[in-house]
Amino acid sequence: MKIVITGGTGFVGRRLALKLLEKNDLDFGRGQGELDSLVAFDVGEADPPFPDDPRLETVTGDVTDPDQLRAVITPDTDAVFHLAAVVSAGAEADFDLGMRVNLGGTRAVLDVCRELGTQPRVVFASSVAVFGGLVPDVIQDDTHLNPQTSYGAQKASSELLINDYSRKGFVDGRALRLPTVVVRPGKPNKAASTFASSIIREPLQGDRVNCPVGEDQAMWLLSPRRVVDAFIRAAEMPAADWGPHRAVSIPGITHSVREMVDALTRVAGQAVSDRIDFKPDPAIQAIVSGWPMKFAANRGRDLGFEADDSMEEIIQGFIEDELGGSFVS
Amino acid sequence: MKIVITGGTGFVGRRLALKLLEKNDLDFGRGQGELDSLVAFDVGEADPPFPDDPRLETVTGDVTDPDQLRAVITPDTDAVFHLAAVVSAGAEADFDLGMRVNLGGTRAVLDVCRELGTQPRVVFASSVAVFGGLVPDVIQDDTHLNPQTSYGAQKASSELLINDYSRKGFVDGRALRLPTVVVRPGKPNKAASTFASSIIREPLQGDRVNCPVGEDQAMWLLSPRRVVDAFIRAAEMPAADWGPHRAVSIPGITHSVREMVDALTRVAGQAVSDRIDFKPDPAIQAIVSGWPMKFAANRGRDLGFEADDSMEEIIQGFIEDELGGSFVS
Repeated sequence: MKIVITGGTGFVGRRLALKLLEKNDLDFGRGQGELDSLVAFDVGEADPPFPDDPRLETVTGDVTDPDQLRAVITPDTDAVFHLAAVVSAGAEADFDLGMRVNLGGTRAVLDVCRELGTQPRVVFASSVAVFGGLVPDVIQDDTHLNPQTSYGAQKASSELLINDYSRKGFVDGRALRLPTVVVRPGKPNKAASTFASSIIREPLQGDRVNCPVGEDQAMWLLSPRRVVDAFIRAAEMPAADWGPHRAVSIPGITHSVREMVDALTRVAGQAVSDRIDFKPDPAIQAIVSGWPMKFAANRGRDLGFEADDSMEEIIQGFIEDELGGSFVS
Repeated sequence: MKIVITGGTGFVGRRLALKLLEKNDLDFGRGQGELDSLVAFDVGEADPPFPDDPRLETVTGDVTDPDQLRAVITPDTDAVFHLAAVVSAGAEADFDLGMRVNLGGTRAVLDVCRELGTQPRVVFASSVAVFGGLVPDVIQDDTHLNPQTSYGAQKASSELLINDYSRKGFVDGRALRLPTVVVRPGKPNKAASTFASSIIREPLQGDRVNCPVGEDQAMWLLSPRRVVDAFIRAAEMPAADWGPHRAVSIPGITHSVREMVDALTRVAGQAVSDRIDFKPDPAIQAIVSGWPMKFAANRGRDLGFEADDSMEEIIQGFIEDELGGSFVS
C-alpha cells in the first residue's frame, strides 16, 4: 500500500504521516493492508527530520508541476492526501501565487491521479473559508459557498473539482472543511488565526503573549489529533457513504477566547493564563470577526467525524504531544 | 464606449449585440455614452451575417487564448459579456474540452481584463446547473452550489472567480444564473432541454414534433427577450448594488409541459398543438427530471430582473422575432 501526502512536511502533513506509519490495518477500498511506502511531498525538507523509517521518503518539489507529481503519484498509489497550499494571508497578498498553488495545484494533483486510471482516493484539505458574506448564524451543511478571500475561493473551486472528478470516476475524492487547528507548535505565523494557538502555546512555555482580539471573540476549533483522525477516517470511508457531495464540514467546538483562557487556567493554573495580555489589534479583529464560528456539522457527525470533547482535552493533547508532557507553571 | 461579447455570434450573443447597437444611453459606471465599437468574438462567423453597422465587428478566435483576447479586449473596453461556452452535453461528453473552454476561458477573459487595470464590467452567463444533488424543492438564493454535471461545476467555479476577481478590484463582475431559454430558433441541438423550444417552434411552422418527456415535467423558463434585457441590466447596475456576492438567479417562470402546450393552443389554436406527439425518451426524461424547476429568485427580483409575464408572451415574442409575425395555423 502506497500513500502520498502533498504538504507532507508541514505541521498537519507531518503528524498525518507519522500516524499513518503507525497503522497496520489501513483500508482504502481495496482491502486491508500494511503501508509499504509513504511519500511526503513538499517544497521543503522535514524540519526536524522525520524519524528513520524505510517506508518513508521525503521528496521536495512543486505541486503545480505535473511531471514532478507523476514521479511520486505512481500507479501503485492507493491514496493521496492533498494538503499543500499557500496559506490564507499568503494567497491574499499574492493572488497569482495563490491561484497557481491552491487552484492549479489541486488541478494538477487531480489530473495526475486521473491519468493513473485506478481511481485513487484523494483527500483534500479544504477550509471553512469557503463560507462568507451573508450567512446564517449557524452554518448549515447546505449553506452556499460564498468565500470572501482568495484562499476561500480557491478552496471552494477545488471542492467543485473534487466533486466533479469523483462523479466522473477519475478519482475517489473527499474534501474536508477544517476548523481552525489549535494548538499549533512552533512560532506564530502570518495567519490572522495564529493567536488562537499562541495564547495557549506561549504561556505554557513561560512566555508572555498578546491576544489581539477581544475575549468575546469566538472561533471554531479542532485539535491536531482530531484533524489527523479526520483525514484517515475520510480516506477509509467507502465512496457510497459520500453520496452526490464529496465535501463535508468537520465537527469542531465553538469557544470564545475567554473560554479558551478559562480552560488554560483549569489545566495549567492562573499563573500561566496571567501571561496573556489583551491589546486589541483592530486589523486582526476585523478579519477574525468575519469568520463563521458556529457550524451545525450534522453531516460530519453522521459520517462519524468527531470534535474534541473540550478545550481542556485540546490543551492536554498539546502538552503531551509537543511539550513532552510538562509546562512552565 | 466599447463592448466585447464572447460567444457573440451565438443565439443569445447575437440578439444581445443587436439590442446593444439599438441603445444610445448605455452606462457602465463611467457615465452615459453611445456605443462606438462592439466586437462579437466567437469561434465562427455570424450565420446569417450581422446587418451592416460600422460599429460592429466580428472576430473569430479561441476564448482560451490570452493573445487573441488581448487583441479585442483593449484598454478602451468598458464591458465584456462572457457568453462563450461548450454546452452542457458537450462538456459532459468531452471533459477536457469543457474544462479548457468553460473554466479556462473564463479565467483567460478575467486575466486579460485584469491586465487592463481599468476594472471593466464583466457579465458572465452562468446557469442553474450550478445547483444539484440534494436541494430544497424551491431553490433559494443561498442554496449551496452542488453541480452534478461538469458544465455546472465549470460554471460554479467561474462564478467563484468572478466573485474573487471583483472583490480584489481586478474587474467589476456579475454572474447571471439563467433559466432554460425558450423559444430558441433554428434546429434542435444536442442539449437535453432542446425539446422545450422544439415543441413550440416546430408546430408553429407546420411540422410535427415529439416531446420526449411527460406532460407533468416542469421547467424553469425565460424568453430570449428577457435574457437580453437581463444581461444589459446586469451590466448597467452599480457595483454597490451587488454587495459581497456577484452571482444571481434570474427570475423565470415555472411551467409544466402541459401548461406550455395549453399556452400554445391559446396563442395558435388546437390544430397547432395537435402537432405534438408524446413518445417518452427515458434517457432525456432522466436528465430533465433532475433539474431544479422552482426558484425563489427573490434577490433577482429585488435587483430589478424580470421574468416573462406568461408563456403566451414568450410564444408571441417568438412569432414576432423569429417567424416574421405569422405561423402555420
